[in-house]
Amino acid sequence: MNQEYLTKLLSEVREGKLTVDHALERLKDFGTKDLGFATIDTHRELRTGYPEVIFGQGKTPDQVAGIIEFMLTRENNILATRVNEEVYLKVKEICPEAVFNPLARTITVKRAETSMPKTFISVITAGTSDLPVAEEAVVTAEIFGNRVERVVDVGVAGIHRLYNKLSLVRQARVNVVVAGMEGALPSIVGGLVDKPVIAVPTSVGYGANFSGLSALLGMLTSCASGISVVNIDNGFGAGFLASMINKL
Amino acid sequence: MNQEYLTKLLSEVREGKLTVDHALERLKDFGTKDLGFATIDTHRELRTGYPEVIFGQGKTPDQVAGIIEFMLTRENNILATRVNEEVYLKVKEICPEAVFNPLARTITVKRAETSMPKTFISVITAGTSDLPVAEEAVVTAEIFGNRVERVVDVGVAGIHRLYNKLSLVRQARVNVVVAGMEGALPSIVGGLVDKPVIAVPTSVGYGANFSGLSALLGMLTSCASGISVVNIDNGFGAGFLASMINKL
Amino acid sequence: MNQEYLTKLLSEVREGKLTVDHALERLKDFGTKDLGFATIDTHRELRTGYPEVIFGQGKTPDQVAGIIEFMLTRENNILATRVNEEVYLKVKEICPEAVFNPLARTITVKRAETSMPKTFISVITAGTSDLPVAEEAVVTAEIFGNRVERVVDVGVAGIHRLYNKLSLVRQARVNVVVAGMEGALPSIVGGLVDKPVIAVPTSVGYGANFSGLSALLGMLTSCASGISVVNIDNGFGAGFLASMINKL
Amino acid sequence: MNQEYLTKLLSEVREGKLTVDHALERLKDFGTKDLGFATIDTHRELRTGYPEVIFGQGKTPDQVAGIIEFMLTRENNILATRVNEEVYLKVKEICPEAVFNPLARTITVKRAETSMPKTFISVITAGTSDLPVAEEAVVTAEIFGNRVERVVDVGVAGIHRLYNKLSLVRQARVNVVVAGMEGALPSIVGGLVDKPVIAVPTSVGYGANFSGLSALLGMLTSCASGISVVNIDNGFGAGFLASMINKL
Amino acid sequence: MNQEYLTKLLSEVREGKLTVDHALERLKDFGTKDLGFATIDTHRELRTGYPEVIFGQGKTPDQVAGIIEFMLTRENNILATRVNEEVYLKVKEICPEAVFNPLARTITVKRAETSMPKTFISVITAGTSDLPVAEEAVVTAEIFGNRVERVVDVGVAGIHRLYNKLSLVRQARVNVVVAGMEGALPSIVGGLVDKPVIAVPTSVGYGANFSGLSALLGMLTSCASGISVVNIDNGFGAGFLASMINKL
Amino acid sequence: MNQEYLTKLLSEVREGKLTVDHALERLKDFGTKDLGFATIDTHRELRTGYPEVIFGQGKTPDQVAGIIEFMLTRENNILATRVNEEVYLKVKEICPEAVFNPLARTITVKRAETSMPKTFISVITAGTSDLPVAEEAVVTAEIFGNRVERVVDVGVAGIHRLYNKLSLVRQARVNVVVAGMEGALPSIVGGLVDKPVIAVPTSVGYGANFSGLSALLGMLTSCASGISVVNIDNGFGAGFLASMINKL
Amino acid sequence: MNQEYLTKLLSEVREGKLTVDHALERLKDFGTKDLGFATIDTHRELRTGYPEVIFGQGKTPDQVAGIIEFMLTRENNILATRVNEEVYLKVKEICPEAVFNPLARTITVKRAETSMPKTFISVITAGTSDLPVAEEAVVTAEIFGNRVERVVDVGVAGIHRLYNKLSLVRQARVNVVVAGMEGALPSIVGGLVDKPVIAVPTSVGYGANFSGLSALLGMLTSCASGISVVNIDNGFGAGFLASMINKL
Amino acid sequence: MNQEYLTKLLSEVREGKLTVDHALERLKDFGTKDLGFATIDTHRELRTGYPEVIFGQGKTPDQVAGIIEFMLTRENNILATRVNEEVYLKVKEICPEAVFNPLARTITVKRAETSMPKTFISVITAGTSDLPVAEEAVVTAEIFGNRVERVVDVGVAGIHRLYNKLSLVRQARVNVVVAGMEGALPSIVGGLVDKPVIAVPTSVGYGANFSGLSALLGMLTSCASGISVVNIDNGFGAGFLASMINKL
Repeated sequence: MNQEYLTKLLSEVREGKLTVDHALERLKDFGTKDLGFATIDTHRELRTGYPEVIFGQGKTPDQVAGIIEFMLTRENNILATRVNEEVYLKVKEICPEAVFNPLARTITVKRAETSMPKTFISVITAGTSDLPVAEEAVVTAEIFGNRVERVVDVGVAGIHRLYNKLSLVRQARVNVVVAGMEGALPSIVGGLVDKPVIAVPTSVGYGANFSGLSALLGMLTSCASGISVVNIDNGFGAGFLASMINKL
Repeated sequence: MNQEYLTKLLSEVREGKLTVDHALERLKDFGTKDLGFATIDTHRELRTGYPEVIFGQGKTPDQVAGIIEFMLTRENNILATRVNEEVYLKVKEICPEAVFNPLARTITVKRAETSMPKTFISVITAGTSDLPVAEEAVVTAEIFGNRVERVVDVGVAGIHRLYNKLSLVRQARVNVVVAGMEGALPSIVGGLVDKPVIAVPTSVGYGANFSGLSALLGMLTSCASGISVVNIDNGFGAGFLASMINKL
Repeated sequence: MNQEYLTKLLSEVREGKLTVDHALERLKDFGTKDLGFATIDTHRELRTGYPEVIFGQGKTPDQVAGIIEFMLTRENNILATRVNEEVYLKVKEICPEAVFNPLARTITVKRAETSMPKTFISVITAGTSDLPVAEEAVVTAEIFGNRVERVVDVGVAGIHRLYNKLSLVRQARVNVVVAGMEGALPSIVGGLVDKPVIAVPTSVGYGANFSGLSALLGMLTSCASGISVVNIDNGFGAGFLASMINKL
Repeated sequence: MNQEYLTKLLSEVREGKLTVDHALERLKDFGTKDLGFATIDTHRELRTGYPEVIFGQGKTPDQVAGIIEFMLTRENNILATRVNEEVYLKVKEICPEAVFNPLARTITVKRAETSMPKTFISVITAGTSDLPVAEEAVVTAEIFGNRVERVVDVGVAGIHRLYNKLSLVRQARVNVVVAGMEGALPSIVGGLVDKPVIAVPTSVGYGANFSGLSALLGMLTSCASGISVVNIDNGFGAGFLASMINKL
Repeated sequence: MNQEYLTKLLSEVREGKLTVDHALERLKDFGTKDLGFATIDTHRELRTGYPEVIFGQGKTPDQVAGIIEFMLTRENNILATRVNEEVYLKVKEICPEAVFNPLARTITVKRAETSMPKTFISVITAGTSDLPVAEEAVVTAEIFGNRVERVVDVGVAGIHRLYNKLSLVRQARVNVVVAGMEGALPSIVGGLVDKPVIAVPTSVGYGANFSGLSALLGMLTSCASGISVVNIDNGFGAGFLASMINKL
Repeated sequence: MNQEYLTKLLSEVREGKLTVDHALERLKDFGTKDLGFATIDTHRELRTGYPEVIFGQGKTPDQVAGIIEFMLTRENNILATRVNEEVYLKVKEICPEAVFNPLARTITVKRAETSMPKTFISVITAGTSDLPVAEEAVVTAEIFGNRVERVVDVGVAGIHRLYNKLSLVRQARVNVVVAGMEGALPSIVGGLVDKPVIAVPTSVGYGANFSGLSALLGMLTSCASGISVVNIDNGFGAGFLASMINKL
Repeated sequence: MNQEYLTKLLSEVREGKLTVDHALERLKDFGTKDLGFATIDTHRELRTGYPEVIFGQGKTPDQVAGIIEFMLTRENNILATRVNEEVYLKVKEICPEAVFNPLARTITVKRAETSMPKTFISVITAGTSDLPVAEEAVVTAEIFGNRVERVVDVGVAGIHRLYNKLSLVRQARVNVVVAGMEGALPSIVGGLVDKPVIAVPTSVGYGANFSGLSALLGMLTSCASGISVVNIDNGFGAGFLASMINKL
Repeated sequence: MNQEYLTKLLSEVREGKLTVDHALERLKDFGTKDLGFATIDTHRELRTGYPEVIFGQGKTPDQVAGIIEFMLTRENNILATRVNEEVYLKVKEICPEAVFNPLARTITVKRAETSMPKTFISVITAGTSDLPVAEEAVVTAEIFGNRVERVVDVGVAGIHRLYNKLSLVRQARVNVVVAGMEGALPSIVGGLVDKPVIAVPTSVGYGANFSGLSALLGMLTSCASGISVVNIDNGFGAGFLASMINKL
């Protein structure tokens, strides 16, 4: 419960404009919308500055569409992640302007202009197979109002590929670095730039990769500084955090 | 072997009503029914107060139906978990009144009224994707004769959603809290109520979730008190234990 | 923040007895005591019915003594777990009536009589080496006002030892079962009683025990019902939860 | 290379019946048959007393059939494990008398009578879902010439089911105990009999079972004596070892 | 509870020699001795043919000595494992004839002659560092009345060392193979003999050995047949099982 | 190699001020200082904006002192982490103004004023035992020229303790959240603020904590947004990154 | 950037043949080709002596074909690994001479003769199921210009099969040993030859094999010398390294 | 058993110079020396070209000294690894010329000149804390007759430190790369040279390093080619293999 709201409420109670019972009632369902299968956090933007995002995995097409239907009653841009075409077709019925990005597995609905900072975010991938995760980060950062520059397939096996892009990378305000296998690229980037590096391990690889574990552990134990890590394949989390930092 | 039975048997032997050989014979297959592929524990209700429940995973439709067929010769309510529609169709042939809950993946046959305590159980989920596991807990608690209140999608990312339901939660005699990802919700609930919290980690999540491991470890190492944990996705176990506690 | 307090505060504001600023101020540090290195939760008993317990591991003797010193200004019984003799000697200086249990590694200060239910808790150990963890559970349950019955060294390698105690076990309202190695004892107890079983895996064992992992996984995947699990070696957690259930 | 063969070869060399070159040549491919994709160990029976068994997993139907075709040129009974119906259909073309057991996933060809000891092997399962693994053990023990007694679904949640069969179990010369979930049954059996227990963890279970890991670790850390463990789901290995012990 | 005892008891009840109450009383503590900190299984030898063995780890010197003191009131040979010199000195006070083996970390008290089979057990080690575990197996097998032959330091890096001992190994009735690091030796032995191989992984090694995990997994997944595995460093378990098999 | 330097060098070569050989020579050891046991990265500040920091773990006191001795020939502030008193005494000999923080296990030498931004960093701990890691973050952030506000012991078991500090937390430009056990606090903070959260798992806990693994996995799989994670106990990494973000 | 190129460039700048701006420009994209979804390392052969290889896993057929299309503009032999028939059909459209090896899952295009050393590489498999991984190694070594000798199905369960091929194995300059399950074969080979052994663990096995983990750990902890390990199922890596060593 | 020996023996038998019994006897203990606690592989040099090396871990000072005493009766250079000063003092008594390297934890006795190839081995470390493992590799490679060049502390956080040494690294015939933490250095080196890279993960690091696991997994899943991996901290294994390759 944010402070202004509480102050106002207390003032109204004091001034007799509001009974104690009414005040209690108001506090009861403050900031949520109950859809039966989901409790939408309508208070989130007030509290965190960002609207709620729909994590599509494990939700039925009807559930995703139901949540979007409610969100359309409000003004915010809408982002759903980890969705497939089946979900999109359901959403399209109620929201024809929804955009599906099959590589990123996202649905977006652009409904408001967001102020865009002059600085930009770089999204760097170690290999071609890391592109879906990177694209989720890109879509996320863009829908939240950021310019993004992609740097593709510059992994450590041919590190001069990164050097060729270094001046671009060094201009970014924050870098998202996406890598599978041994996940060494964030260490290299972290040793070359003076800006935050958000490392995203991917499940790209096989054998001792153990579904992204090798990249995850490698990034966590990086000998370079200025690096932090999000969950394996969590392009959304990286794009969101990059946006947050870019807009500071 | 429970004591009354043994006392009676010994008395009958002493009084000459029963020969030693007959007594030995009676003790031989006491409390089981052999179906060839399964040995049903007919003694369980006497011993534990609860009839046997069918764990459907790894059993063929014929096996599940065969066990239910035998159980129908007795008076108890019947519960089968981890079953799919194919199993249900087989069961329906011999038991048309069987009820299939596709979300909970359960079959129930209501055959007796169970005395219902005045207190109730809350089943709380962190997210929409945790609903199937929660529903298994609900079905289980209900078939064993309990009132259940659902609190849906109140995970820690918007914790005021839980606060809105807090007075309900605090009235429950025991709380089942179902959460995937980092599994933090039981810690929060445990810090707010003075009743037992049964934490159910779910396999909802990806990457470093490792099929529910992150939620499981998080719940086991909770800094709040009054919390205990059941297996990942084990809605049945939580509902059963909640019923046991609710009926104390 | 509990409802009565809020109602009263709102009423006072409404009646003009309290200014809005004062009300805000009161809500500011409500229910805590800041010791610099620790923020004591003075509100906990109101909220959860139990006073805060000191987890001694990782705290210096001075820190533990400092927290106890503050607690002595209040009325509650005091319990500190995971402490050694060095901590005890420090505490004794400011609180001569403190009792140290070296087996359980606890410090207790008995300052108030707690109402004791007629029912009791059983604490059952699989082996002699599990005794320290069991004793932590016993001390915890007793300081919170419960009668406890110990059943010692009745592990599954000689399961008739348990059968000899079965009538006692069956009278308990809730059973704490402490076992290391393969951790099978809770499954057996769970199959024989109709009351909740709180399983405590211990790190007793070697090799594939992996510091209690084998017992932990075994208890989580138990085929018996009515069982839930706390952290490895968490005697306190089990004793606390058992007390909570015993007092329902 | 076994000693008799070497003695005879050396004698022939000494007696001039064999040149040094011929002797070297003979030693070159001694005891194998090269099929291109497989090198069959024709020497195994001489060396270990048992013919080679075909592990079907990862082999194509053609490869399995090719190996069986070669084996048919010899006298031994034939056993292939981890095969499916597709493999069987291929094998049947060249060997119509082959028998497929879909539960055990085995193909057997009975071609010789094996002397059968008077003692027998018990194969005990904790649950119905463990039957496929148990059946693999049964088929293996039988094709190697043993009598097997099955004891089905007597897991620890209702341990009196085992007690009812105890006199049978105690007569067995060696016990194969098959269990998933927490894998506690071998500990119980091991505490009740004075004969070797071969424990077979199965991947039956979910969540913290981690594909049989909980049962495996539980069996390895058993507090009972006389127990050893084979790989998860390795019914063949257990049946083979049981046969070896039964025939000592 | 074994059958003869039950038959006799029932007969006495029938014949009026025993009241029902007395019969119940007798069944109460049947086969155990309660020492407060331990419940000794005095019934074990009757049930399993072997007296109870003291697992010293996690027990105080006083506890070990207390258990031995009780055991001295009976006739059996005594074995305590995982003990150190401090424990031995305590035991020596009450039992001067106790023998301490510092390599095997065992205390033995020889009090009865056991019949010794003509066949023998081989205990084979891969390296010098595996000797303590092997010696625990040797001491165990000998105190239970078996002849043991040691084969030392014949690991797979110089496998001809094993071949030099092969005729001895092939004469053993059962082989205990102790190995750390990759744990490959049991696979080799298993491929060369027609007798059971009990594989004992040791925690000898470093790095990816992970305290014996590499050897444990290697032995469990052995491609040879006739092999089963006990816990890491469990020399006692291997020696006990080998004795059981040798005496079949 | 940064671009200005390269441009200047190329220009000098072009203008004949520098021979090709000299240019190659200059590029050879550019930006490093070889101490025999260490190769100091003197180029790092130019490249990343931050001087090199000494990671003390695994280095001898002489090595740490040797590196500091070299650094004293330059102007930067000096920070060494993971050092103990023995290292400090060695360093003090050559640098009496060095400051040792035993809680944070750091040595600092303040040699230059750094411009300090108006915004501040919050460092929040879940429990008292997390203080050493938090303090490492505080020392790091401060030596790099930031204001830090500590919020101590506000873990989720009594979450109102955090609410009491919420207005302070919400004013921070970036939040470092340090927690062991289940590591849930970053999720809560992340759901309440609109600024980046750097989560630091600690090894505080026992049993299923597995040396910080439970907190690490929990933070990585957090359901809240805007959170990224550094290595277990890596207070330095968090403080460094927070400084980087605070100074954007 | 290799030294000759840099020398030449610097010389040209010095001689005024090249402006500073042009020099910078040249260095910008030196040695890469940007395909949008991939950045091809055209500099690799110069730098490492080997052209880039296409890792097909996680790439679409169009992406693989696009990369090959670019490579066809150059002279090198082409190798793509981890591809299926669908990829091959796409590649065939633009490159009819491409060869698909379904067992090895490779596409090769032979476009240049490579000098072949007189020495050869042995590729040894423990079992028939290891053949696909071995074949990937063979195809790789051959396309890079090496003679390869296969030794098939000589695992440790019948180790005389290896002895029969020992003289061939001992003539190889480097041995690739491919094994699943316990992965013991490299230890045996390493103990018998005086040449490097490249061990390739495979995911062949089940249960405690944990997708190749048992073989991987076994090979890493081998007690034999001269052995190093590549990733699970990484036939390409082994073949590549073997070629590198064979051509030294 | 090597072929020449066998040929000669067979010839002598044929020529009547040797009886069959004598021939069998000779084959019996061929190539070993039994010290009671160790079976020395005297045949190894003949078979593998290298004398046996003493792995000191887990051996008593007396055992190490005993093995060295026997080896002194032969001509080879002697190497013992993983030894401490206590072992050295024992060895020095019988072999005053023994050299102890406390950093590498090795004892060497130089007794013969080994032919030294013109090519050299590079041993590269990521950090100062990796030096002990690197030194073990250096000592090993040198005692086996190789020139070694050290490149120290050139980890990826300041990768230009490596570039400064690149021409030296590129001249090496084989590179040993030693790194802890994320273990990324071998990937970088592998991408820059055309010679084999032997990667040695070290246990340097903390937290998610998990005693070297992060470096190990990172190296195994490296995206660069020409890399193979030895056990964590296995400097000996890397030095041995490097020597083997350098002498090809």
